[in-house]
Amino acid sequence: MKLFNISPINYELEEQINHKIDFKTKPLNALGTLETIAKQLCLIQQTLTPTLNNTLLIVFAADHGIAAKNGISPYPQEVTAQMVLNFLNGGAAINVFCKQNNIKLKVVDAGVNFDFAKNTSLINAKIAKGTNDYSKQSAMSKQQCTEAIKKGAELVEQYHNEGTNCIAFGEMGIGNTSSASLLMSAFTKIPIEHCVGKGTGLTIDGVSKKTVILKQVQNLHGISKDPLENLKNFGGFEIAMMCGAMLKAAELKMSIIIDGFIVTSALLVAQAIAPNILDYCLFSHVSNEQGHKKMLSYLNAKPILQLDLRLGEGTGAAIVYPIIQSSVNFMNEMANFESAGVSNK
Amino acid sequence: MKLFNISPINYELEEQINHKIDFKTKPLNALGTLETIAKQLCLIQQTLTPTLNNTLLIVFAADHGIAAKNGISPYPQEVTAQMVLNFLNGGAAINVFCKQNNIKLKVVDAGVNFDFAKNTSLINAKIAKGTNDYSKQSAMSKQQCTEAIKKGAELVEQYHNEGTNCIAFGEMGIGNTSSASLLMSAFTKIPIEHCVGKGTGLTIDGVSKKTVILKQVQNLHGISKDPLENLKNFGGFEIAMMCGAMLKAAELKMSIIIDGFIVTSALLVAQAIAPNILDYCLFSHVSNEQGHKKMLSYLNAKPILQLDLRLGEGTGAAIVYPIIQSSVNFMNEMANFESAGVSNK
Repeated sequence: MKLFNISPINYELEEQINHKIDFKTKPLNALGTLETIAKQLCLIQQTLTPTLNNTLLIVFAADHGIAAKNGISPYPQEVTAQMVLNFLNGGAAINVFCKQNNIKLKVVDAGVNFDFAKNTSLINAKIAKGTNDYSKQSAMSKQQCTEAIKKGAELVEQYHNEGTNCIAFGEMGIGNTSSASLLMSAFTKIPIEHCVGKGTGLTIDGVSKKTVILKQVQNLHGISKDPLENLKNFGGFEIAMMCGAMLKAAELKMSIIIDGFIVTSALLVAQAIAPNILDYCLFSHVSNEQGHKKMLSYLNAKPILQLDLRLGEGTGAAIVYPIIQSSVNFMNEMANFESAGVSNK
Repeated sequence: MKLFNISPINYELEEQINHKIDFKTKPLNALGTLETIAKQLCLIQQTLTPTLNNTLLIVFAADHGIAAKNGISPYPQEVTAQMVLNFLNGGAAINVFCKQNNIKLKVVDAGVNFDFAKNTSLINAKIAKGTNDYSKQSAMSKQQCTEAIKKGAELVEQYHNEGTNCIAFGEMGIGNTSSASLLMSAFTKIPIEHCVGKGTGLTIDGVSKKTVILKQVQNLHGISKDPLENLKNFGGFEIAMMCGAMLKAAELKMSIIIDGFIVTSALLVAQAIAPNILDYCLFSHVSNEQGHKKMLSYLNAKPILQLDLRLGEGTGAAIVYPIIQSSVNFMNEMANFESAGVSNK
């Protein structure tokens, strides 16, 4: 896929950035991870005074054909649509955290199995009313996959044009930890049984059942060298749309805040298409879904938070946001030794 | 010291709190640490709708007689006063983070070796112009120690009367990681060499030198069974004042956000005086000062953040604050399954 042209970060400013950080009134490296974040944002934005403008979180929602299968999720498929309505009514966790942290929130119907009323503030990008059951056929057609990627990219471009330079993604889709596990196994080559977790709350027996089903799915489709083929076979529409959104965001040199297991599975696809995307990613947290830690390790990613979250919706990204803001603020607002008249060692 | 009457948390509401958390529109336990924080705040405040009111961070600053000793800190003692002026001018890290997170910041001169101009907004609680050099005598007299504890308690009571129900503490004092290491060793019984770290940035050689000096100090004074005796021998005025402030805050059933190594050393003294204080403490982070992890482990404390911070000033507490706010907000603002019309499993 040659649609995205992602440049690696330019390190020319590195020395100047380090100098600015090191002469702030604090011991060397004393702000730890905040210094790492500040530096990355400076490099992405090619500046010594980074900013976070119109930060946006897009939640992509879609249904999964596999979700009808008993043993994949403890919740019925209807919950996807119900939760979308909850988002629109402002009652979900992601609403609360975005509101608190002044993050603009948009909800996208990427393929929910429900007819939403026209007058809602939902962005309609429905590819179909849920994917196919991938235990029988590919989750989506090649055309649907490309369409989803394109739609995600278009949305990001639109918000970039409106001034957003920092973006996060969230997802909702009953059954989507199964897609994420299959994608994880396909891209990391970790056996599927080590990629499957309890999702929204399966018991140990439930996890075993889910593993058996997903092993059969993997055997049916095999693992392809073509990232899009894997996405088409195992993906959800929300995952494909996030993948396109991430790729476009990196092309536009936006900072991307990565959430948990499912969002990271979309990134696994994206980085297989364009490895430079990783330069633009901040990893908000390592979730309590067991595969997530291994995904991050595969990506050499150091998560900022470890709060045992496993909610999805982009909540980890929304919760970490003030810490990213703190990184920007110390860079722009803290005095240096000279200006403050403080003796350096 | 029978001055403080700290009740343990009352667990009567526990079941109701758990019920409220578990019926929010999210999988069970999906908000991980945020649920733990929310529950603790509910129990402290004896409510299902906790609030954070007029949250305050007090930075206590003081000098240390030992700081003249070569090998204790890479920075000269003057930096304590210079940093206090930096706080008053709004240029330090703690200013930036408190401003960002809407935390009221107060700076207290607990015993800085400098005459500050009268017209500054500094709170004058100076016990003396720095402690004695504890390699020769006790850091302070018994009377000074009691005075510092009392002064810290008075300050907290004043702000409690003005409506503050959540409080954090920070510190500034060149040489105060040495006091903290000595107190750590005295209360945890961990040998001093495992309590000493690089502080503001000592080299490996520097740490060895510091260890030798502190071992001699420990041999000179010994370790007492009386917490106040240890505080008097090894403490700083800022540590003693924080100790009193913490004890009063817990007595008044305020939530206390604990910062890093030095603040936690004050808590070690406080919990030896009144163990129930721990019910009221939220542990913001584990710092990069090597002893801090062991301190937290001794206290059975689970830090919220792990960001390799080692700046002091209360910065870890200020940085974590939005996550504590998120815990309160989900509790108060998120819909439950019934109100949102979402199917529970």
